[in-house]
Amino acid sequence: MSHPGPRRPDFFLHHDELLGRAVAATADRGHWSPYVETPSPSAYGTEAPARGEAAFKALLGKLFELEGHPGSGTVPAGEISPYGFELGISYPRVTPGQAVAAAEAAATGWRAASPDTRAGVAAEILSRLNEASFEIAHAVQHTTGQPFLMAFQAGGPHAQDRGLEAVAYAWSEQRRHPAAARWSKPQRKGGPLALDKTFTPVGRGVAVLIACNTFPTWNGYPGLFASLVTGNPVIVKPHRRAVLPLAITVRIARAVLAEAGFDPDVVILAAEGPQERTAPALATHPSVRIVDFTGSTEFGDWLEANARQALVFTEKAGLNTVVVDSTDDYAGLLGNLAFSLSLYSGQMCTTPQNILVPRDGFATDQGPCTADEFAADLAGAIDRLLGDPARAAGTLGAIVGEGVLRRLEEAAGPGRTVREPRAVEHPEHPGAIVRTPLVARLEADRDEKTYTREWFGPVSFVIGTDSTEHSLRIFRETVRTYGALTAAVHSTSEAVLDATEAAALQAGVHLSENLTGGVFVNQSAAFSDFHGSAANPAATATLSDPAFVTGRFVTLQSRRPAPAERSSTDV
Amino acid sequence: MSHPGPRRPDFFLHHDELLGRAVAATADRGHWSPYVETPSPSAYGTEAPARGEAAFKALLGKLFELEGHPGSGTVPAGEISPYGFELGISYPRVTPGQAVAAAEAAATGWRAASPDTRAGVAAEILSRLNEASFEIAHAVQHTTGQPFLMAFQAGGPHAQDRGLEAVAYAWSEQRRHPAAARWSKPQRKGGPLALDKTFTPVGRGVAVLIACNTFPTWNGYPGLFASLVTGNPVIVKPHRRAVLPLAITVRIARAVLAEAGFDPDVVILAAEGPQERTAPALATHPSVRIVDFTGSTEFGDWLEANARQALVFTEKAGLNTVVVDSTDDYAGLLGNLAFSLSLYSGQMCTTPQNILVPRDGFATDQGPCTADEFAADLAGAIDRLLGDPARAAGTLGAIVGEGVLRRLEEAAGPGRTVREPRAVEHPEHPGAIVRTPLVARLEADRDEKTYTREWFGPVSFVIGTDSTEHSLRIFRETVRTYGALTAAVHSTSEAVLDATEAAALQAGVHLSENLTGGVFVNQSAAFSDFHGSAANPAATATLSDPAFVTGRFVTLQSRRPAPAERSSTDV
Repeated sequence: MSHPGPRRPDFFLHHDELLGRAVAATADRGHWSPYVETPSPSAYGTEAPARGEAAFKALLGKLFELEGHPGSGTVPAGEISPYGFELGISYPRVTPGQAVAAAEAAATGWRAASPDTRAGVAAEILSRLNEASFEIAHAVQHTTGQPFLMAFQAGGPHAQDRGLEAVAYAWSEQRRHPAAARWSKPQRKGGPLALDKTFTPVGRGVAVLIACNTFPTWNGYPGLFASLVTGNPVIVKPHRRAVLPLAITVRIARAVLAEAGFDPDVVILAAEGPQERTAPALATHPSVRIVDFTGSTEFGDWLEANARQALVFTEKAGLNTVVVDSTDDYAGLLGNLAFSLSLYSGQMCTTPQNILVPRDGFATDQGPCTADEFAADLAGAIDRLLGDPARAAGTLGAIVGEGVLRRLEEAAGPGRTVREPRAVEHPEHPGAIVRTPLVARLEADRDEKTYTREWFGPVSFVIGTDSTEHSLRIFRETVRTYGALTAAVHSTSEAVLDATEAAALQAGVHLSENLTGGVFVNQSAAFSDFHGSAANPAATATLSDPAFVTGRFVTLQSRRPAPAERSSTDV
Repeated sequence: MSHPGPRRPDFFLHHDELLGRAVAATADRGHWSPYVETPSPSAYGTEAPARGEAAFKALLGKLFELEGHPGSGTVPAGEISPYGFELGISYPRVTPGQAVAAAEAAATGWRAASPDTRAGVAAEILSRLNEASFEIAHAVQHTTGQPFLMAFQAGGPHAQDRGLEAVAYAWSEQRRHPAAARWSKPQRKGGPLALDKTFTPVGRGVAVLIACNTFPTWNGYPGLFASLVTGNPVIVKPHRRAVLPLAITVRIARAVLAEAGFDPDVVILAAEGPQERTAPALATHPSVRIVDFTGSTEFGDWLEANARQALVFTEKAGLNTVVVDSTDDYAGLLGNLAFSLSLYSGQMCTTPQNILVPRDGFATDQGPCTADEFAADLAGAIDRLLGDPARAAGTLGAIVGEGVLRRLEEAAGPGRTVREPRAVEHPEHPGAIVRTPLVARLEADRDEKTYTREWFGPVSFVIGTDSTEHSLRIFRETVRTYGALTAAVHSTSEAVLDATEAAALQAGVHLSENLTGGVFVNQSAAFSDFHGSAANPAATATLSDPAFVTGRFVTLQSRRPAPAERSSTDV
């Protein structure tokens, strides 16, 4: 393929091997990641940490520039760091109608490009996002409240992994069918009937990504890259309190698109002001054909009911559940669970909430333990984990919003509080709002109304049950009805593990078993773990799998008589 | 795997090679079919034709027996052959609630079976359906009105091809991820973090197949087999005028399921009486998670809007369009199109309706030809094709219902009728209602209201346009807005073919080019042609492709510390 004009970089040629390895990794499901997860100067360069911080600080208090971006005017600054300062960044303003029109106009060239070309551009965007990991880490930290190391990992390389995973599925799914084929059907008399056929993957149409406050990049990249690589322009609508990480992402994506010879409006930032709410209008615009959403159950359900013209992928809320039956490593169990509950103050869609424990006790390597004793031991483990203020701050991060604080207050009501949440002073950021987790004791039969709603934030319940069988019944029924993104079990009995696996299959949730070491139920690894199951009310999508990409494009066909054998097809 | 009790046949082992070849064929997209399409004694045995007819006749006037079928009582006979006699067959009655409860109860064992086992059972069902092709052909002929040869091909081997194609996609899609994997992540200190993971494909839940009157098996098998192989029980709800072909299908499926050791209620027949309408209740039952539908736009749209608890696959109606620009084989064009319009009296969802022709003429190998001349020539070609009564009956079949006759009368109104529909006496079935096609001349600008609705049946319009460019604009806009299942173009110009291909990609429809021989626009070949595009309003599904199966199951995961390296995961 040669054409006049400036020579374009061939990003596909550059990333071909990476893409092949990524596709192989989706099928292998062992450990694989091309992006280094530690913010180490040895991996990212000695200058990278300082340069990233400087880049972040240079953005504060200004208009975020996006060259040639559609729309006019600015969206006033509204982001406030949970660590206690205003970001003061305003963004280009674009109305839903302007954004859709610009995306549609940009779509023509992008749809005409091959899946290879689109995958190459996506891989290059990811490569540059990786280079910008420190800048993005600061942006994520100061919009989500995540501690810095987590903001770097989850907001940077781990989000990039998830993005590449979506690229891999989207790219390979478009290669399932050949671009062309000869169909030749033998006839009883004369030569065969023969047709030449073409098969063209065609994007469904304009995509809208409605991102969340807590994991704007990690939860956003799969939908963004799945839509892009399948040939769709994407309008990125960040949460109004977490615009910056996605604004940086959009800036990088537009730069790569332009370099590759595409209209940069293939990716558009639709920031909204502090008092605005543009997601409903964007998601229900007649030309919008794909919506990816992470956020509240309420709005997710609304989108599913109302954005009927689009394919809607949602990740909402649920009741993440732990079944405690027995353990041969009680200390490991407590330490692991204490960390899961404390990490980012439980502000993860994967943090356990409901811990089901036989009221009268279960077996441990340190002797039998009642539900009350367990609750007290868990509280103690959290105390020990968070005893050192620096370590506490590095684990907890900051509280992302008023809603979490409100729920934390409210959660003191219904149960018997075993561990009070405490305010912690952040050693570096005195303005940060930091809270340690609340643990309350509930009873399975009495407190159903309390534990069958999601308490997003550092709130968890040790729920006394009659037996593990009773725990499994509650697990199965509550998750089937209310959804969950994660589930865990602790047991030394293969029979109980089997029964829990069966219950998890019935409930439609992924299960972690006997995690007592350095892997936590709230973490999932790209290319190995699925995130969400699409099998319970918490999510209609898995990030990522074939079902996450197949609907984003169609394969259209043409056929005509094959020239050489044309005369033989006459009747 | 060994277990007590009678030895079960291993259908997977028996059909392993066939399944592998079917999966390869979906990726190759050349010509491939394992089921012989001609009703020849050499392929099916010399006894097969007579045995099939006898089997069909033995069913008439009786209760159709389904051993152990849920429900109670019978649905009274209501099917009337379009060839002029009552079938007189009553069916077991099952209410929607009973059907769903029985399907749910049967699901447990079926879900627990492996994708291999399920694919093997499905392949065996298809093998026995193939053996029953003559019986099914008579059942299809006398419920749909198709001529016998077509009923054999489309209702038998071609439907079985489409079923096997769905089996192939469903089976291979569940093998994309391994059943188990070891995740091992190197750590800076000590041994790796290691987890053993399992990945289990799990069916979404109870599926309902709402089948159509005209192609009960061809349009029904893809959804039936896609749902079955992905682990879902299927409630088959036939059209009330075409129960028998699917009743035979259900009988065979239940027999194979029972032999394989499964509850036969994995496949249930939900026949409805002549005055009943059970599809809405079935499709919106809270436990129903998948709906496949072929039929009217009105009910398809209703299902999409109301069966919100389910994944809904629809194939509805559209405006199948032909763009005539030029030809170097005018006789071939006329002959091919005349056959397309006449086959089964145009009662195919793929029959062309709107033929866009430049009013002032287009180039042919026999000199220029105006739209009026073309319409007259097309009428003449139809007359010639149907001049012999036996050949006419073998091509046209019988009119399936009152609605088609009503539309045929109504169609004489709006345009200028170029060819009147005529009643034809069927040589073998004097009671058959047989009609030849109506062709009317319309004008693009004046008659938009007429040609932008679907006139299902033997009605087509030669629509005069200003130019091919004008034709392409109408093609693109009407198909985008109202949908289409097929499109065709005739042109000797590569530039026009290119422009039509571009318009078809924008409209979201598959395109056939310059068909003048033995392939017709209304035919599609399994394993090579996609049917429906899911890219325009006529259908939300393609039969079949990966998107047709990925949503029917989820892959659920469990993970636990790997035993050998367990101690190294302690922190």
